[in-house]
Amino acid sequence: MQWITEQDERSGSAIGYRVTEKLADVRSEYQHIEVYATTDWGNLMVIDGCFMLTTRDNFLYHEVMAHAPLFTHDNPQDVVIVGGGDCGTLAEVVKHEGVTSVTQVEIDAEVTRLSEQFFPELCVGNSDPRATLLFADAVHWMREAADSSADVIIVDSTDPIGPGEGLFNKAFYQQCRRVLRDGGLLLQQGESPLVHSGLHHNIHKAMADAGFEQTQSLLFPQPCYPSGWWSGVLAGDVKTLAAYREADARAKSFKTRYYNADIHKALIAQPESWPL
Amino acid sequence: MQWITEQDERSGSAIGYRVTEKLADVRSEYQHIEVYATTDWGNLMVIDGCFMLTTRDNFLYHEVMAHAPLFTHDNPQDVVIVGGGDCGTLAEVVKHEGVTSVTQVEIDAEVTRLSEQFFPELCVGNSDPRATLLFADAVHWMREAADSSADVIIVDSTDPIGPGEGLFNKAFYQQCRRVLRDGGLLLQQGESPLVHSGLHHNIHKAMADAGFEQTQSLLFPQPCYPSGWWSGVLAGDVKTLAAYREADARAKSFKTRYYNADIHKALIAQPESWPL
Repeated sequence: MQWITEQDERSGSAIGYRVTEKLADVRSEYQHIEVYATTDWGNLMVIDGCFMLTTRDNFLYHEVMAHAPLFTHDNPQDVVIVGGGDCGTLAEVVKHEGVTSVTQVEIDAEVTRLSEQFFPELCVGNSDPRATLLFADAVHWMREAADSSADVIIVDSTDPIGPGEGLFNKAFYQQCRRVLRDGGLLLQQGESPLVHSGLHHNIHKAMADAGFEQTQSLLFPQPCYPSGWWSGVLAGDVKTLAAYREADARAKSFKTRYYNADIHKALIAQPESWPL
Repeated sequence: MQWITEQDERSGSAIGYRVTEKLADVRSEYQHIEVYATTDWGNLMVIDGCFMLTTRDNFLYHEVMAHAPLFTHDNPQDVVIVGGGDCGTLAEVVKHEGVTSVTQVEIDAEVTRLSEQFFPELCVGNSDPRATLLFADAVHWMREAADSSADVIIVDSTDPIGPGEGLFNKAFYQQCRRVLRDGGLLLQQGESPLVHSGLHHNIHKAMADAGFEQTQSLLFPQPCYPSGWWSGVLAGDVKTLAAYREADARAKSFKTRYYNADIHKALIAQPESWPL
């Protein structure tokens, strides 16, 4: 039995899985994508050597990335997902009956093709009539998008290295802010609050520089990412990002495994001291 | 630069750190203890091949193990720590001014000796006049301890394999329950809620079998342990373990890095579905 390990040079820490075989090895126009079968974690997708998701633990990330912003927004109807090629966030977003459109802008069609093949349970929302899957550069797409046309933008991107780099700066967040309607929310995956605390802080700063009045860290476990502790950064022009539709979250009509109204409160609880 | 990796066979996952040198390699009467210097995590203690703590991330575990039970108890005065040889939990416990005695029962004096040498910041409570450090078998010690002599028992043990094995069963928890006063609380480190969910469940069951009316999972990030997501299981003969001295936690007179009143609520928030 073999082990595959991702050594995160930035944090001096590594994560590994016991694997039984390599299922796919694709060099797309943008990146090197591999899929492995593991002994205990289902399938594992690796992009440019970084672990992206496993069958077993992706529910944590995807449920937080979808339900935290959608239950924070008063009435989310039009949702944009930037990146998100594995479609797991999309599958959670379409669980919200009030959502009328979800537009996903992923640069690399190969990621979605491989997810359909090896993570079919994450792709159940792809055929939803409200969903549009575009394969395009989201930086360009956001510049062209109409003013005030979205309620929630979820940036479900890779690390700020490689294709994801342009999604972590003031210019991109300014475009997102323009595209959001009043009361709109932006959520960016925010790296590890412990071992990437500089990056995490820079996201807050870039969002504030882009004009957002409030930013809020969401913290959650994510075993397959460096340190196993991950975050999102939520931004909006609202009074507070700590308020959410708690009663609606308690009465939600769909199933989740991690997210619920109490977990929402746990996500926004802030450690005593920053940086960690 | 070298990397050291712990492959957790039970979960098919691994965690690793980039190390610069080995600082200690001791075979005690009970176990094999190593200490490494890492590039980004300070020092790392390894027991029988399992990562026990790093300088950088141990505050998460130690703060939870101490402050969660002590702020749940109405008026904790006499505290017993089972295991806890690195002394990090003890250092947090003595921060509580109301505590009048802390008795630590660690089987292996070598763990404490090495912690004093390589994790001196965790050993600041060792000379507190309220602290007694015993090096003895806690299973035996607990059998001999007087009825109703402790308010909080914290089982800060290794995994239920090797020296820690006897600390994870009904017989031991029955002794703990006898030793606790009315309103007393037992906290056991509870393994990973995700990848050791069977073990985690068994702790709840053994505590209930021992007679405890309530048990409660506490969930928190802990990067150096398998999956990076860890737990405690709290037990007591009380109405609920979800209530805590919130006002006192908000007004606490000492510094922490992770724990506070909001984080306490996050610890007790339960995921939507078990087992995960």
